[in-house]
Amino acid sequence: MSIITIERKVLEKNDELARKNRELFARQKNFVINLVSSPGSGKTSLLEATLAKVKQRASVAVIEGDVQTDLDAQRVAKLDVPVVQIVTNGGCHLEAKLVHDALQSLDLSAVDLLVIENVGNLVCPANYDLGEALKVVVLSVTEGDDKPLKYPTMFRNASVVIVNKVDLLPYVNSNVETLKQNALSINPNLTVFEVSCRTGQGLDAWCDWLIEHSARKG
Amino acid sequence: MSIITIERKVLEKNDELARKNRELFARQKNFVINLVSSPGSGKTSLLEATLAKVKQRASVAVIEGDVQTDLDAQRVAKLDVPVVQIVTNGGCHLEAKLVHDALQSLDLSAVDLLVIENVGNLVCPANYDLGEALKVVVLSVTEGDDKPLKYPTMFRNASVVIVNKVDLLPYVNSNVETLKQNALSINPNLTVFEVSCRTGQGLDAWCDWLIEHSARKG
Repeated sequence: MSIITIERKVLEKNDELARKNRELFARQKNFVINLVSSPGSGKTSLLEATLAKVKQRASVAVIEGDVQTDLDAQRVAKLDVPVVQIVTNGGCHLEAKLVHDALQSLDLSAVDLLVIENVGNLVCPANYDLGEALKVVVLSVTEGDDKPLKYPTMFRNASVVIVNKVDLLPYVNSNVETLKQNALSINPNLTVFEVSCRTGQGLDAWCDWLIEHSARKG
Repeated sequence: MSIITIERKVLEKNDELARKNRELFARQKNFVINLVSSPGSGKTSLLEATLAKVKQRASVAVIEGDVQTDLDAQRVAKLDVPVVQIVTNGGCHLEAKLVHDALQSLDLSAVDLLVIENVGNLVCPANYDLGEALKVVVLSVTEGDDKPLKYPTMFRNASVVIVNKVDLLPYVNSNVETLKQNALSINPNLTVFEVSCRTGQGLDAWCDWLIEHSARKG
């Protein structure tokens, strides 16, 4: 029982810090997304393709979360976008406090869109609010169309699903319609995009959506 | 500090129960593998293909670990292999206690090879000993060749890496040699198999290795 109490306290403390992050983002008019997925579903490749398209239309910054290495931050930095790397040293998810600390290295007053790329993990990051406007789940077709049923919390807590690597559909057993039905059975409010970072398919629709949501209101 | 203490106690308690599981497996002469990977790397498909090949040569049983649903156990049961499903209800890894409880539903005296398919997660299961002989990491080529560097603990604690979905190599940016070099830089003792469950490539070598290790000594 004591462990459950500690865990609840950890989550409560995290929620409190996430609220503060969210208030800061509101004051600075930042649109913030928390990009989550399994390892290897293509979050960083999607981010690279997205940044290349949106950075002329909006001021963007990135926070990279990884268990180990700054390989992803190096990839993003090549696109001349401000990026801060968080290494969790084995930690299986980002927390609001880590994001708060990383924010000290960014000039938020100049940012329209902040992308937080979480640790590759379809389980643990689902329960940790970072103060984001919404969670975007990336799921590649190679992972199989049953994943929303098997990892429901993430899909329940997300607002957007990006079905990635659709160029590989001819070579795998996944069915995109089944995948979408499974995702919507968990959360009927999900917005779904189908994309391929290799062919560029679907990227414009996703980037337009992102720009529309990043536009500073008032 | 109190949280760290609790976590250490959780791990110590788990290690103690894992030791008991290991003693039981030794008495019953069971060869036990803990199959770990990201969601969607193909653990269950690999398991289906493996069971079809080895079940005539060894007596096999399976414990399925999932965050939610018994979809995987249903797939395995179709192969007429004894299977027990553990649903963690949001838990991000299996623990020795859950495996101990599942073992009550299996006749271990009749089992040569026990496969424990862990929750899809490349982070958390790395630190939880279940009493297995060894951990087998499945990594599909679609996940990218940098994953051993980004999730090192799992590769450090594993004995075998199965590079899966090699039939997709022509369509993705991964390089198998780079992937292997990255894995071996983390853990030079890893045994590596390259397989495709779609074409059958490499499955015989993997299954022969498994049978050889499952053979009851004395």
